[in-house]
Amino acid sequence: MVRDNHFDVIVVGAGHAGNEAAAAAAKMGSKTLLITMNMQVIGQMSCNPAMGGIAKGQIIREIDALGGLSGIVTDKTTIQFRMLNRSKGPAMWSPRAQNDRMAFAAEWRYQLEQIPNLYFFQDMVVDVLVKDDRVVGVKTNLNQTFYAKSVVLTSGTFLNGVIHVGLNKYGGGRMGESAARGITEALKKLGFEHGRMKTGTPPRIDGRSLDFSKFERQDGDENPGKFSFTDTEPVKNQMPCYIAYTSPEVHDTLKLGFDQSPMFTGHITGVGPRYCPSIEDKINRFAHRERHQLFIEPEGRNTVEMYINGFSTSLPAEIQYNALTKIPGFENARFFRPGYAIEYDYFPPTQLYHTLETKLISGLFFAGQINGTTGYEEAAGQGIVAGINAHQHAHNLEKIVIRRDQAYIGVLIDDLITKGTEEPYRMFTSRSEFRMHLRQDNADERLTPVGYQIGLIPEQRYQSFKEKYQKRDSFIEFISNLSLDLYVLNSVLESKNSVPAKQKVKLKSILTRPEISLKDFYDVHEIKEFIHINELNEEICDSAEIQIKYEGYIAKEKEIAEKMLKLEHLEIPQTFDYNSVHSLSAEAKEKLTAIKPKTIGQASRISGINPSDINILLIYMGR
Amino acid sequence: MVRDNHFDVIVVGAGHAGNEAAAAAAKMGSKTLLITMNMQVIGQMSCNPAMGGIAKGQIIREIDALGGLSGIVTDKTTIQFRMLNRSKGPAMWSPRAQNDRMAFAAEWRYQLEQIPNLYFFQDMVVDVLVKDDRVVGVKTNLNQTFYAKSVVLTSGTFLNGVIHVGLNKYGGGRMGESAARGITEALKKLGFEHGRMKTGTPPRIDGRSLDFSKFERQDGDENPGKFSFTDTEPVKNQMPCYIAYTSPEVHDTLKLGFDQSPMFTGHITGVGPRYCPSIEDKINRFAHRERHQLFIEPEGRNTVEMYINGFSTSLPAEIQYNALTKIPGFENARFFRPGYAIEYDYFPPTQLYHTLETKLISGLFFAGQINGTTGYEEAAGQGIVAGINAHQHAHNLEKIVIRRDQAYIGVLIDDLITKGTEEPYRMFTSRSEFRMHLRQDNADERLTPVGYQIGLIPEQRYQSFKEKYQKRDSFIEFISNLSLDLYVLNSVLESKNSVPAKQKVKLKSILTRPEISLKDFYDVHEIKEFIHINELNEEICDSAEIQIKYEGYIAKEKEIAEKMLKLEHLEIPQTFDYNSVHSLSAEAKEKLTAIKPKTIGQASRISGINPSDINILLIYMGR
Repeated sequence: MVRDNHFDVIVVGAGHAGNEAAAAAAKMGSKTLLITMNMQVIGQMSCNPAMGGIAKGQIIREIDALGGLSGIVTDKTTIQFRMLNRSKGPAMWSPRAQNDRMAFAAEWRYQLEQIPNLYFFQDMVVDVLVKDDRVVGVKTNLNQTFYAKSVVLTSGTFLNGVIHVGLNKYGGGRMGESAARGITEALKKLGFEHGRMKTGTPPRIDGRSLDFSKFERQDGDENPGKFSFTDTEPVKNQMPCYIAYTSPEVHDTLKLGFDQSPMFTGHITGVGPRYCPSIEDKINRFAHRERHQLFIEPEGRNTVEMYINGFSTSLPAEIQYNALTKIPGFENARFFRPGYAIEYDYFPPTQLYHTLETKLISGLFFAGQINGTTGYEEAAGQGIVAGINAHQHAHNLEKIVIRRDQAYIGVLIDDLITKGTEEPYRMFTSRSEFRMHLRQDNADERLTPVGYQIGLIPEQRYQSFKEKYQKRDSFIEFISNLSLDLYVLNSVLESKNSVPAKQKVKLKSILTRPEISLKDFYDVHEIKEFIHINELNEEICDSAEIQIKYEGYIAKEKEIAEKMLKLEHLEIPQTFDYNSVHSLSAEAKEKLTAIKPKTIGQASRISGINPSDINILLIYMGR
Repeated sequence: MVRDNHFDVIVVGAGHAGNEAAAAAAKMGSKTLLITMNMQVIGQMSCNPAMGGIAKGQIIREIDALGGLSGIVTDKTTIQFRMLNRSKGPAMWSPRAQNDRMAFAAEWRYQLEQIPNLYFFQDMVVDVLVKDDRVVGVKTNLNQTFYAKSVVLTSGTFLNGVIHVGLNKYGGGRMGESAARGITEALKKLGFEHGRMKTGTPPRIDGRSLDFSKFERQDGDENPGKFSFTDTEPVKNQMPCYIAYTSPEVHDTLKLGFDQSPMFTGHITGVGPRYCPSIEDKINRFAHRERHQLFIEPEGRNTVEMYINGFSTSLPAEIQYNALTKIPGFENARFFRPGYAIEYDYFPPTQLYHTLETKLISGLFFAGQINGTTGYEEAAGQGIVAGINAHQHAHNLEKIVIRRDQAYIGVLIDDLITKGTEEPYRMFTSRSEFRMHLRQDNADERLTPVGYQIGLIPEQRYQSFKEKYQKRDSFIEFISNLSLDLYVLNSVLESKNSVPAKQKVKLKSILTRPEISLKDFYDVHEIKEFIHINELNEEICDSAEIQIKYEGYIAKEKEIAEKMLKLEHLEIPQTFDYNSVHSLSAEAKEKLTAIKPKTIGQASRISGINPSDINILLIYMGR
């Protein structure tokens, strides 16, 4: 509450989406109000205590490149860091961090409080105020009215949330927290369509009751990386995670509860996340699999609580318990709380523009789970875009659209608003037709100019960014023009067991060989000298190498994407047997068989049909 | 949830009372289960971010002396420390700390997780299971049954909690958290009487919106003390608090909301805390006062949030806001959230034994606000007693009773169970007939032997405690027998402008002079040598001095207490005009006039009538 109740931007909800939205709008200069039901739990990680992972890690890097805070908050509270897919090419590298849950929330709140234009109010928003199809403000449970030119709704799992454990159910937005009421009804009146989704979380365990000697230990990277392009520090003193496996015995025990499963008995009507299924869903759908992997993740540095990643469930508590204690190492496990499922309201995202503004109400933006997505990173990525555009709207400035070839955030939003989603949407690299280009290492190259242009990236940061890429480009140019002495070249090639060159060739052409890295030539005099004189650090050298090595692939990727676009109208025979195409994803087979699209274009607009599926179809159809 | 659901002790609720109860029972060896509705908010300070104060500080010291954790948790998260009443005699000294709210809760959880026998479960208890008038366990919202020989209920403000802001009201246990349901109904069925109480909390303010130059600054002590007798460290880098005042204009603004006050319009039926009144209550009851003092207290080291101590209110949010912004320094104040009142169920404590076990149900204990008290310290003090006795009960051991002449905790419990309470009970020094003896400095002398005897104080701690008091006693003996050379004595007395002695006297008799401290003689050769040889530290020397100086007063205090006991049957004339006795407290005048007790004994058993009131009556009646 402030002297005047008038703001540029109001953000409702202080989770990953709301925090990024509020921070972006306020930093860009909007007088911004963040309303949350409980200021004690700003920035709570509702589910696993981890950020990033495949495709998701890239999103955090993209948010950071735009000037968001998720990367910084993650870096400051990391307890373990791993670069996933390091054995594959750098295009696949995906950073992932385990976080201290309490510290993560505290850091978010601290970061937000540092932003001068950002105001806070603790209350439940119960109504959205609209005049002539323009949003004008919100009303709260305490009968407070706040006005704004833009409103961003990020309601997470709270809208009419219902928690299920077995056949027990009760209202709640998270276990121990109240559900939110009013907004769905308000939006319905305004003409919005809404639906019901479901997600779940595993039990939390007392780590003192586990026998860690029976698990595989998983340590963090020896030289841990980090998320932010700013000067945050990589984690010190990493904590290990552990790996365990379910067994047929565990599965049989779980099955004893299927008749009391709220999912299997129809008590849950909301659709759950296909790629983050509950354990009962996994043993039901993959009946042939004898075991499923579980990750035992510490909840923080100062707690014994452990998160059992992979064991999300809404079976009755006794069943959860009986099954879990059949896993070696869990024999004496004690629950801090059981897993549960939660149903909540969402609004089909086809009701949005690419800016995340709603089509029905000008100035009203949605971000996060309200749009049918799942995942902290997906929420935060939408949050920053909604926050940016809420600011732009409030100041009559042009809104931005992040394109598919620019970022996973662009893929995410384009998929959502074009295809909609019938089930919680999660990002995968396969959803992008540009995954060679949308790498974690070049997120700044792709997005920091955007962040700078709209005023989220400060001048100084932009200047060092420019300097980094100027140096990188000059290094690329230098390498591209470099032909090494044949003797020097071949001595390196031989040391790597690579076929020697027969004549003097450009170094660049040698670098396309997979077994050869630019690093192998760092001791060559000219290169050593260039690196030294131009003060090139490791990050810059790596960036140059990736750019050189992947140039061809990236060009090809672009070509294929353009080709696909042209083949929009190519007809698919109605008798086409999708199940015979083995390389199609299970989801693609299921959906294509059901929908039987008439053209490639129609197929590509089906939610869950990825560019890679379309590519496979085209190959199969002889194109 | 554990393999077997059988415990020695179950504690319901993880606030100040529940945490102390669970810690005590578990440390004494009971297999103990702590059940809380939300493990994320264990040890939350629901109201002001401070511990201790007059009489309350003594209670924390007593808890620590018994082996409890409140002192340790407080010391580890203190951001400012002050010894109140330092200008008065040491009998009145009362330690008080400002705490970092988030760190305080995190520290409580950390401390609890270190206790091997202590188990946790997150759920809402909805039923208390009883067999043949013995408690046997509890049932939770998720339909879990846990069995135990002893159950401690510490429900705080959660039982059927209703939050009021103006005429808006809704269910909740704290703002943003759900109320608890089921226990009241279960206890009613068992034959318990219950009532309704009310408490309130002030608005939380964005410190960035305040003009601190308009406030008086209040710093912590130059040499800050601490609460725990263990080896915790005193606070470093203290933060200041600030003082501001209301004004007639502020009061007039508040009055504009009186017609929408839930208190004044009868919407709140529960009785509120007399000595922690809302601001509207203060300006209503003390209409002649032109201003009331407010303390502006920081919520922690890493937040801009400020707590406005003294401005508790349940007036409509706009009224709160309009009034507050009329205070110099608050002109641009922004609310994080408004103040509110909360009504909740309590159970008249006359239904308890001195052990805090209920009379109706064997093995069932109550502690904290459920007994009609207010205050973190009062809750924690009951918690440790309930926890100790829950353990003793579970193991068929003799329960302990803390006596009135032993501790404020004893006064608290005796008052509660003997007199009951119609309004939230808060501790004051005046409630004790032994306040010269119940000092903060000697809490360990009074209670550590008790803690040791029951197994809460470890051997090593007890040995250092014994050593401390052996040294102290030998110092007292040495001083008691010491007669100084007249010249030496008088040179000290003259330096303190004290009347010189005419002949050689015992130093002890000189020490009864208020202007003379034992410290003034530390340079005297014999004393200096004794201190050095016996390695007496400041704490020991101070303890000796207090004991010597107060010996006479403490003896007299005991005598008066015994005399009062003997005068139990002394009749009070029914025409006695209590209002003419100016030195009686306002509460005493009100209650004595209303009840017209027949005897001194009856008067002393009225809730709110303190030993000091009885003493005044006796003097007035010529006894």
